[in-house]
Amino acid sequence: MNFSSKLLENAVSEFSRLPGVGQKSALRLVLHLLNQPEQDVTRFSNALIDLKSQIKYCKECHNISDQDQCEICTSLKRDRSLICVVEDTRDVMAIENTDQYGGLYHVLGGLISPMDGVGPSDLSIEALIQRVQKEEVSEIILALSATMEGDTTIFYLYKKIKDLGVKISTIARGIAFGGELEYVDEVTLGRSIVTRIPYERNIA
Amino acid sequence: MNFSSKLLENAVSEFSRLPGVGQKSALRLVLHLLNQPEQDVTRFSNALIDLKSQIKYCKECHNISDQDQCEICTSLKRDRSLICVVEDTRDVMAIENTDQYGGLYHVLGGLISPMDGVGPSDLSIEALIQRVQKEEVSEIILALSATMEGDTTIFYLYKKIKDLGVKISTIARGIAFGGELEYVDEVTLGRSIVTRIPYERNIA
Repeated sequence: MNFSSKLLENAVSEFSRLPGVGQKSALRLVLHLLNQPEQDVTRFSNALIDLKSQIKYCKECHNISDQDQCEICTSLKRDRSLICVVEDTRDVMAIENTDQYGGLYHVLGGLISPMDGVGPSDLSIEALIQRVQKEEVSEIILALSATMEGDTTIFYLYKKIKDLGVKISTIARGIAFGGELEYVDEVTLGRSIVTRIPYERNIA
Repeated sequence: MNFSSKLLENAVSEFSRLPGVGQKSALRLVLHLLNQPEQDVTRFSNALIDLKSQIKYCKECHNISDQDQCEICTSLKRDRSLICVVEDTRDVMAIENTDQYGGLYHVLGGLISPMDGVGPSDLSIEALIQRVQKEEVSEIILALSATMEGDTTIFYLYKKIKDLGVKISTIARGIAFGGELEYVDEVTLGRSIVTRIPYERNIA
């Protein structure tokens, strides 16, 4: 692109570094910000700088937090014997939004992916094992994506935890609610027959 | 959404104010930035603050510029008798990328749109008329979008300029190169027959 201004080019180049943002979208976003009042742009920039410089990670569950310990880990209402292991904070938010889970979390900070150079030591797996050993945990729920990286991580965690005397479960995989049978892929449909559950549990 | 951190929520809310960015995309972008080194985030923020505080608009053509006059207006290689009127700086960039135009530009800063509360006085129309009156302009090319707002603005500009003794033209509308006839809409196809041009001009 042929920019009429170096400042504009810089801002567009910064925006187009973001995932899923091409140069044209970046230009659109930058021109939008340029049309906003100066205080709005300053507030936008400061929100990012503050986030980066002041953000903390909960020392228990490694979730993003404003304090040393997150609200979930300090809550007295949560079931402390359950730990749900997730990839990142987005998954915590997604599960919290369901209002179906009352235990604690453990945020791995990623999934094992040799292709991307992410090994077990890059994730907070050691901290999870220490939690299982030190705290009174009865069940570890592995709520990871149904991808190759997710399955690899689940298998690794299973091997690490299986002898620690806690129950290990994974979230159910199957046909999504509202999903039409004929459009479901073969693997999902096949597994959903093999891992079928008694009807009474579905209406519980 | 249920944010575990106020700082995170602020940053996401700032990002989701951008056009076409919903809360989920905003969260994805913010978490991406959070994973970058602090200096990258600072550079990102500063690029925006610098842009907003230091950007200038060319006093001739109103295009975005780092100086009081843009590179196109100060260039000795451009044909100063041609002025191409466009909506915003993106259109200048698009036309420059074609390498088919060697004249000057005039950036309106928008299109007349009563629905959005944009009237002629919100655009740099008066400045355009002064340029036509003061400078030796032979032709005004109206290169605006083929939308209702574009056509309204073209009609308004035509009425304002037609008695000033300059040629007024609009860019050609018709079938796009590579476009298959059967998929072209009726209006475009109809107008492209009415405004057909001698074959010799197409191969010139």
